[in-house]
Amino acid sequence: MQKHKISILGAGNVGTHLALELYKLDYTVLQIFSRDINNAHTLANKVQAIAINSIADLSNEADIIFVCVNDSVIVEVVNQINFQPKLIAHTAGSVSIDSLNKFNNFGVFYPLQSFSKKTNLDITTVPFCIEANTQANKNTLISVAKRLSDIVYELSSEQRMQCHLAAVFANNFSNHMFAIAEQLLSKSQIPFDILKPIILETANKVQSIKPILAQTGPASRNDSETIKNHLQLLSMPDMEKLYSFVSKSIYNMKINNNK
Amino acid sequence: MQKHKISILGAGNVGTHLALELYKLDYTVLQIFSRDINNAHTLANKVQAIAINSIADLSNEADIIFVCVNDSVIVEVVNQINFQPKLIAHTAGSVSIDSLNKFNNFGVFYPLQSFSKKTNLDITTVPFCIEANTQANKNTLISVAKRLSDIVYELSSEQRMQCHLAAVFANNFSNHMFAIAEQLLSKSQIPFDILKPIILETANKVQSIKPILAQTGPASRNDSETIKNHLQLLSMPDMEKLYSFVSKSIYNMKINNNK
Repeated sequence: MQKHKISILGAGNVGTHLALELYKLDYTVLQIFSRDINNAHTLANKVQAIAINSIADLSNEADIIFVCVNDSVIVEVVNQINFQPKLIAHTAGSVSIDSLNKFNNFGVFYPLQSFSKKTNLDITTVPFCIEANTQANKNTLISVAKRLSDIVYELSSEQRMQCHLAAVFANNFSNHMFAIAEQLLSKSQIPFDILKPIILETANKVQSIKPILAQTGPASRNDSETIKNHLQLLSMPDMEKLYSFVSKSIYNMKINNNK
Repeated sequence: MQKHKISILGAGNVGTHLALELYKLDYTVLQIFSRDINNAHTLANKVQAIAINSIADLSNEADIIFVCVNDSVIVEVVNQINFQPKLIAHTAGSVSIDSLNKFNNFGVFYPLQSFSKKTNLDITTVPFCIEANTQANKNTLISVAKRLSDIVYELSSEQRMQCHLAAVFANNFSNHMFAIAEQLLSKSQIPFDILKPIILETANKVQSIKPILAQTGPASRNDSETIKNHLQLLSMPDMEKLYSFVSKSIYNMKINNNK
């Protein structure tokens, strides 16, 4: 199987995980770009690559250039590339493939996972969402994704954006619910540890049951007495508003589902 | 070690798990009460207990009576008990210990977990929150809790209610975020499977990192472009309102945390 030579733009959470995993699979990592040369060096040293902090230094020898910079600077960064890459793909959930259409060969290589530099995770369980401007480019990106992971989807830009939106709810918003819970506990000097098992179980349950069928609690059973007590306990206008709004949304979804 | 004789009022999610786990630990389960005698029989048969559907048939021989009926009917059910139980404890998060103060010996035995009859879980990881009207009763309940689980807390009714409120955020509200995500995906014919890994990772991360430090995404980095695109994509007034409100709450919490 052909092992492509790969360069990576961005040494953040996604760039770091991608570079390390590709290196583990014996891909040649040519260059790591980061505006902060120290960041670039830290990662490049781990994968025997060259660190650069200027796109002008980017080599045209890479078979694939993965763009892992922040969504908001993708266009700005790729506009500085003044040659035709063999293949260039960004890794963002919410950015259209069209952001790369000044090139001849381009695509999207979006890992649907919440990466942190400092947290290890099993890359084989990460869904990769692939899109490309030609079938050949799609096949190339799929072949790399399949070496990294067991889960590969072909999604259009529209589907990927819908996925990214759904992931904001499933990841960012649910994490915010955990953050609020922690705040509430700390007010009563109760350690967050007490909630860790129920948080794990909440995530485990929806691996096998549809979330709407896993729902329990006062909102779902329309227990107005408990809801009233909780609102009193919160005694912060913003939190009360959030509690009421989400509770109503839970109840409405249940009613609509039973129709 | 003394093995108490135990009766259980309620054959729902908590009553079922508690009866089965106590039976596994060789406790004698005397009686199972449920208003629906078939429910009572189904559980009683599994733990060699007697099924009853009238509190008038409740035996005074139990060392502990666990009240596992719905929060809203606890008072109604226990008011029908016309003898002094050796010890009676309810298992509700949001009900004060005072709901049992017509008895001489009473307490609370609250397992902070989301139980479903059909889902197995490891009871040793469930935090039990204990409260009682005397130290002796507290010791009895703690001894039972410690046989079931590795995690036992002594909490006042106020602390327990705060815990229950926090659990509503951590469990019900986060599960609702998963349910909304599923709805969004199904509109684009994308299977919910694609989100299962990120949901697990979201729960895993907060086992070792504070939720506020684990937060990522457009709200956290105040990425107004992506937020605008997401609101357009949602195109449902209620969902847009929820998205905006939670996004603002995420950003505000981040700002306050950095102060």
